[in-house]
Amino acid sequence: MSENKTLVEAEMLRPDRRKSDELREITVIEGFTKHADGSILMCFGDTKVLCTASVEDRVPPFLRGKEEGWITAEYAMLPSSTETRKPRDRNGRVDGRSVEIQRLIGRSLRSVVDLKKLGERTITLDCDVLQADGGTRTASITGAYIALVHAVKKLMEEGKIEENPITGNVAAVSVGVRDGEPILDLNYIEDSGAEVDMNFVMNEKEEFIEIQGTGEERPFTKAEFSRLMELAEKGIKQLIRIQNEHMK
Amino acid sequence: MSENKTLVEAEMLRPDRRKSDELREITVIEGFTKHADGSILMCFGDTKVLCTASVEDRVPPFLRGKEEGWITAEYAMLPSSTETRKPRDRNGRVDGRSVEIQRLIGRSLRSVVDLKKLGERTITLDCDVLQADGGTRTASITGAYIALVHAVKKLMEEGKIEENPITGNVAAVSVGVRDGEPILDLNYIEDSGAEVDMNFVMNEKEEFIEIQGTGEERPFTKAEFSRLMELAEKGIKQLIRIQNEHMK
Amino acid sequence: MSENKTLVEAEMLRPDRRKSDELREITVIEGFTKHADGSILMCFGDTKVLCTASVEDRVPPFLRGKEEGWITAEYAMLPSSTETRKPRDRNGRVDGRSVEIQRLIGRSLRSVVDLKKLGERTITLDCDVLQADGGTRTASITGAYIALVHAVKKLMEEGKIEENPITGNVAAVSVGVRDGEPILDLNYIEDSGAEVDMNFVMNEKEEFIEIQGTGEERPFTKAEFSRLMELAEKGIKQLIRIQNEHMK
Amino acid sequence: MSENKTLVEAEMLRPDRRKSDELREITVIEGFTKHADGSILMCFGDTKVLCTASVEDRVPPFLRGKEEGWITAEYAMLPSSTETRKPRDRNGRVDGRSVEIQRLIGRSLRSVVDLKKLGERTITLDCDVLQADGGTRTASITGAYIALVHAVKKLMEEGKIEENPITGNVAAVSVGVRDGEPILDLNYIEDSGAEVDMNFVMNEKEEFIEIQGTGEERPFTKAEFSRLMELAEKGIKQLIRIQNEHMK
Amino acid sequence: MSENKTLVEAEMLRPDRRKSDELREITVIEGFTKHADGSILMCFGDTKVLCTASVEDRVPPFLRGKEEGWITAEYAMLPSSTETRKPRDRNGRVDGRSVEIQRLIGRSLRSVVDLKKLGERTITLDCDVLQADGGTRTASITGAYIALVHAVKKLMEEGKIEENPITGNVAAVSVGVRDGEPILDLNYIEDSGAEVDMNFVMNEKEEFIEIQGTGEERPFTKAEFSRLMELAEKGIKQLIRIQNEHMK
Amino acid sequence: MSENKTLVEAEMLRPDRRKSDELREITVIEGFTKHADGSILMCFGDTKVLCTASVEDRVPPFLRGKEEGWITAEYAMLPSSTETRKPRDRNGRVDGRSVEIQRLIGRSLRSVVDLKKLGERTITLDCDVLQADGGTRTASITGAYIALVHAVKKLMEEGKIEENPITGNVAAVSVGVRDGEPILDLNYIEDSGAEVDMNFVMNEKEEFIEIQGTGEERPFTKAEFSRLMELAEKGIKQLIRIQNEHMK
Repeated sequence: MSENKTLVEAEMLRPDRRKSDELREITVIEGFTKHADGSILMCFGDTKVLCTASVEDRVPPFLRGKEEGWITAEYAMLPSSTETRKPRDRNGRVDGRSVEIQRLIGRSLRSVVDLKKLGERTITLDCDVLQADGGTRTASITGAYIALVHAVKKLMEEGKIEENPITGNVAAVSVGVRDGEPILDLNYIEDSGAEVDMNFVMNEKEEFIEIQGTGEERPFTKAEFSRLMELAEKGIKQLIRIQNEHMK
Repeated sequence: MSENKTLVEAEMLRPDRRKSDELREITVIEGFTKHADGSILMCFGDTKVLCTASVEDRVPPFLRGKEEGWITAEYAMLPSSTETRKPRDRNGRVDGRSVEIQRLIGRSLRSVVDLKKLGERTITLDCDVLQADGGTRTASITGAYIALVHAVKKLMEEGKIEENPITGNVAAVSVGVRDGEPILDLNYIEDSGAEVDMNFVMNEKEEFIEIQGTGEERPFTKAEFSRLMELAEKGIKQLIRIQNEHMK
Repeated sequence: MSENKTLVEAEMLRPDRRKSDELREITVIEGFTKHADGSILMCFGDTKVLCTASVEDRVPPFLRGKEEGWITAEYAMLPSSTETRKPRDRNGRVDGRSVEIQRLIGRSLRSVVDLKKLGERTITLDCDVLQADGGTRTASITGAYIALVHAVKKLMEEGKIEENPITGNVAAVSVGVRDGEPILDLNYIEDSGAEVDMNFVMNEKEEFIEIQGTGEERPFTKAEFSRLMELAEKGIKQLIRIQNEHMK
Repeated sequence: MSENKTLVEAEMLRPDRRKSDELREITVIEGFTKHADGSILMCFGDTKVLCTASVEDRVPPFLRGKEEGWITAEYAMLPSSTETRKPRDRNGRVDGRSVEIQRLIGRSLRSVVDLKKLGERTITLDCDVLQADGGTRTASITGAYIALVHAVKKLMEEGKIEENPITGNVAAVSVGVRDGEPILDLNYIEDSGAEVDMNFVMNEKEEFIEIQGTGEERPFTKAEFSRLMELAEKGIKQLIRIQNEHMK
Repeated sequence: MSENKTLVEAEMLRPDRRKSDELREITVIEGFTKHADGSILMCFGDTKVLCTASVEDRVPPFLRGKEEGWITAEYAMLPSSTETRKPRDRNGRVDGRSVEIQRLIGRSLRSVVDLKKLGERTITLDCDVLQADGGTRTASITGAYIALVHAVKKLMEEGKIEENPITGNVAAVSVGVRDGEPILDLNYIEDSGAEVDMNFVMNEKEEFIEIQGTGEERPFTKAEFSRLMELAEKGIKQLIRIQNEHMK
Repeated sequence: MSENKTLVEAEMLRPDRRKSDELREITVIEGFTKHADGSILMCFGDTKVLCTASVEDRVPPFLRGKEEGWITAEYAMLPSSTETRKPRDRNGRVDGRSVEIQRLIGRSLRSVVDLKKLGERTITLDCDVLQADGGTRTASITGAYIALVHAVKKLMEEGKIEENPITGNVAAVSVGVRDGEPILDLNYIEDSGAEVDMNFVMNEKEEFIEIQGTGEERPFTKAEFSRLMELAEKGIKQLIRIQNEHMK
C-alpha cells in the first residue's frame, strides 16, 4: 500500500467498499440445469457463470487407444452478458480472448485429474457467462471444478470408474493494482482501470498451477508481485473452502 | 379424440399427466440479468430460455436514412441445454434449425411493432436456451415479447421515444398429434414421438401472425387441423394473460 | 372477396389478368439435363427451377447400418436469376432463407417416400432457380417430386429396388392476400405487396404435409385462412394432375 | 498424325466421329433468362453454360474515383451438371479449379474492353454450367463475350455510355493430344484421356490473349505445340463467326 | 526487337542492366532449415523462396489402396514479403492467385515423378516466399524440384524406396514483352509494366510441361510468341544446369 | 538445484551441455528481407524467427480520430518449421496457440510505446517462425522489439514523427523445471519434458511486463518460482544487451 494513504482511505477506494483483500460474495447454485452430468451456477458477486460438465464415451484422435481420458473446456459469453451487447462468435469469426480463456480452463482442470483413472472418456466443461462483471475466467475455473467433481461422482456411483481420478482442488482468483493499491478479486470497473492485472490458479496446498500477469498500464516490480501473490493465496484459500462445502 | 379411449384414458397419455389442453407450468422471472434493457427468464415447464432485449442506436444498412427502426432476433442453445451435449456453432458451421427459428422470432416480434415510432434504433432479441425440454421457439417468442416491452418502456421513460411503438401482444405455442390425440404445448418426449407438429403465433385478438405445421410422421386432415387450432387459441389466451401480468 | 368489389373488378386486380383462383401457366420439361437420374425444368409462369434427383449408394452417418435410405434437398438461386444480381453463397456466408427452403423441400419429399424400401441410398434433390418470379419454393417441391419419381423408376428398371418406395404425390402452391383479396399462386410483384403469404404442401388425398403462413403486413383472421386453404386445395389438385401426366 | 494411321482411321478415333479439326455443334440461345442485362445459353455439343452479364453502378474499392469500370466473372457448376453429383461450394470450402477458371474468364473479357469508356460501373459475367461435357471454360468465355456485348448494347441504347467500349472479339477453344493425335474441342471422354491439354483464347486478328497448356500425361514437343496452335486458330475463327451472327 | 533500337539501347532498357536474354543471379542455399526432408532457399535475384519437401506415410483418400504416392504443393507469401504488407490468408478468405500457383507447382512436379515407384506416401512441397521481386512461381517450381530430389534421396538412403521415382528435371522461367522487347526472367518492376507475360515449365529434353501466357496489356502475335519461347528455352537450360550442380 | 547433484552433474543434464543459467547462442541478422520497415532474423539457437515491422498510415476503427497509433502482432509457423509438418491455418481453422501468442507479442510491445507520439499509424509486427526449436514466442518478442525500433527510426529519419515513442526495451525468455532442475531458455526437447514452464517479459529496469507460468506436469512451489524468476532476470539482461548492440 502506498505510504500516503491510511488504512481507512485505502479501504474506501473500492467502488463496492470492499477491503483490499476481500472477495466479493461467492455463491454456488448446484444443479442449476438438469441435463449435464454436473451443473453449477458460480457467482463472484455480479459475475454469473454457468459451469457444466458433460461426459462422453470417446476421446480426441490423439488419445485413441491409449486408455486414458481427456478434460477439455469451452468458454463463451452470452451476447447479453456484457454492458454493451457482444456479437456472437458465428461465421468463423474468432474471438482470441475466448480461445485463450478456454485453453486456460482446460489446462487448469487437467492439472488435478489423473487421466488414466478417468478411462477412455472426455469430460467437457462448458463455461457460459450469463452475466459479466469482471473475473469471468476465475469464476469459470472455480465453478468448473465443482461441476467436474459432481460429474465424476456420478460416474463412480454408476460404477463406470472405480478409483477417483481427482487428485486435489483447483481454484482461481484475480488480483491487480489499481491507483497504486494491490487488491483482490477485481470487478469490472476495477479491472478496467487496473494498472496491473494477474490471475492465479492454485491448489489446496498453496502450489501454483498457473500464473498470468500483465502490466496493462505500466510494468510492475518484484515487490508489487509479492503483495499480489499474498492476496491471491488468501482468496484461493477461501474459494477452496467454499468448493469443499459444495462437494460433500 | 379417437373413439376407443375414454376421457380419463386420454388424459393419462401425457407423460407428465397433463390434460390434452393444458399448458405446462409457465414461469416468468423478470430482471434475470442486469445489463440488457429487458431480461426475462421464460420457463415453459423445464424449458428455460433467457430472453433479452438490447437497444442500439443504429439500424442495418437497408434502413439507413429511412427514419425507422428494426427488430431482430438471435436464437441459440447452450451446449449443455440438451440431453446429449450439443456442439457450438463455431468455425462457420451452420445450424439450419437455429437460423430458421431466429428468423421466425424476428418476424413475429416485428408484427407488433410500429417501426416508424421506434426511431432509428435496433432492438436485438437474444433467446438463449439454458435448458431445453420442447417448445423452445414458442417460449422464446412469448418471453422475447415481455423483454421487448420492458426495453421499450425504458426508452420511453428516458424520453428517447414518445409514442409507444408496441401495437399489441404476440405469443406462441406448440400443438401436435401424438398417438392420434391432439395435444397442447408438447414437451421433448411428446415432441419426439409426435405425428404432427404445429406452432401458432397469435395476437390478443385471436388473429394469426404465423402458422407452421408439419406432418412429421404422416399427413394430417382438415379436421385434425381445426382441433389443433382450437387448442392453440386456448393456450395463447392464457400466455397473453401471463404476459400482461408481467408488464404493468 | 371484399363486398365492395364486383367479380370483374376483382379479376382485374392481378397484374397478369389472372383470376384470383387461377394458376400461372405450368410447364414441365422432362430430361432438361442428361447426367442426373431425374431432371425436370419446372416452370410456374416465369419462375423456372431446374429440379434434379441424384442417387448415391451411401447414407448420412446417422442412418448407417439401419437399412433405410434418405432423401435430402439443396436449394439455390443462380446469381442472375433475380432482377438485381444476387451474390453467391460463398466463403461460408449463410443465406438463412435458402437453408429454410431446402429443409422444407427435403421434409416434404420425405413425407411420400418409404425410406425402408429405398434401401441404403441417398437421393439428393437439387433445386436450382434459373429464373425467379415468385413461388420458387412451391415450384421446387412440385418439380422435385417428378424428378424423384423418374429417379426411382430408373432404380426399379435397373433392378436395384424391388418395391416402389413412393407412397403418393406431393405438390405445393402459394396463396396470399393482396389488397384484401385472397389469391392463388403469387408472382413476384404480387408477393412483394402481399399482406398475408402462405405456402401449402399437400398430397393427392387433400391432406396437409406442411402449412406455412405469415402475416407479412398484418395478422390474418380465421375466415381469411379458410379462404386461402380453399384456393390452395384447388391449385394443388391441378398441379397433381399435371405431375401425373409427366410420370406415366 | 502418327504415320501408321490413315486419314480415315484417324477420323474414326473420336467417340462422336468428328474429324480431328472439327468443332462440336455450337448453339447459341439468346435471351435464355430475362433478368440479366445479357443472357446466353452457350452450347458446345452437350456442354451447356448459362452466361449472363449483369451491370451494377459501382466499382471495386481499388478503382473508386478513377473514372473507369470493371469486368469480373464468376464460374460455377451446378451440382447436377456432372456425371457424378458435385457438392456445392458452401461453408467456405474452396474449389481451386473454379477460382482459376473465373480468373481466366475475367482476364480474357477485360482484354477486349476499354474500361475508361465503360464508366464507373461493373459488369459481372456469371458462367453457370448447367451440363458439363468438356470445354466448360472455353464455352464460358465464348458465350460470356456475347452476353457482354448485349449488356453493352443495352447501356448504349439507354444512353448511359456514349462510345462502344468493346474493342474486338474474344473466343476460346480447347485442343489436345489423345492417342498421339492432336484434336480440336475435346469433349469429356476425350479430355479425360488426353495426354496434352491446351486452351487458347484469341481475338479476331488471330492474336493470342491467353495460352494455357499442360502435359497431363507426358511432356509435349514444339512440333505438337505448333499443330495444336493451328487447330485452335481454325476453331476460334469459326467461333468468332458464330458470335458475330448473334450480335448484329 | 523493334527496329528503332540498337542492341546496346535494348540492353539498357532493363532496370538492373541485364541483357534481354539474361537470368538474374540464381542462388541455391541447401539445407536452409533442418526439419523438412528437403529444404532449399531458392533465389532468383531478390526473389527468395523457401522450398521444402516433407514426406508423410499416407496418401489422400482418392489414392488409398492404389499402391501409389502423391506429390502436392502449397504456396504462400509471408505478409512482409511484398512492398506493401500483404494480409494473411486467414478466416477462410481465399487468395485465388495462391490457389492457382500451388496447383501449377503440384502439376509440374508430378510430371517428373513415377508415383507408383514412390509407394503409398505423400510429399508436400511448401513454397513460402520470404521476399518477392517477380517470378515467385518459377523460382518455386525450380527450387521445389531440388528439395524433392533431396527428400527422395533420403528415402532411398533409408531403404524406404528402391527405385528412383524421379524421371527427369523440371524447371520454370518467366518471359515477357516490355516496351515492345521480349525479355527473360522479369523482376517485379518489369513484370508490373509488361504487356505480355508468360511462364514456361520445361524438362531437360526441351519439352513443355506447362505453358501459361497472358496478354496483360494487349494481345500478342505468333512472332512474339516464338521469340518468347526461345528465351524461355535458353533460361531453362541454365536453370537445369544449376539444379544438377546441387543434386550430385 | 537439488542437493543430491554436483554442479557437474547438473550441467550434464541439458542435451546441448549448457549450464542451467545459460542462454543458447543468440544471433540477430539485421535487414534479413528488404521490403518491411524493419526486418530481423532472430535466432535463439536453432529457433529462427523472421520478425518484421510494417508501418501503415491508418489505425483500427476503435482508434479513429483519437490521434494515437497502434501496435499489433501476427505470429505463424511455416508448415516446414516443425519436425512433423504443421498444416497451414487456412479455411478458417483456428490455431488457438497462435492467437494466444500473437496477443502476447502485441501486448508486450505496446507496453514500451507511447502510442500518442506514434501518431495515427499502425505498426504490424509479423513474427514468422522459419525453424522451431522451443522458445518461439520469446524469440519473437525479443526480435520484434529490434524490428520495431528500426521501423521507428525510419519514421523519424523521414520526419514523419518527431519524438521517439519508444520508452524502453522489452525482451522475453522462457524458464522451466526439468527433472527437478530450474533451467533457462529451454529448447524443444527440454520444453517437451518440462514439469513447469514459464515465460517472462521484462524491461531494462528488471520490471515485469508479463508473467506466464504453467505447471504442465505438476504444480510448483513458491521456492521454485523464485529460482525461475532469478534465471529469467539473468537471461533478460543479456538479451537486452544484445538488442542494444543492434540498435545503435
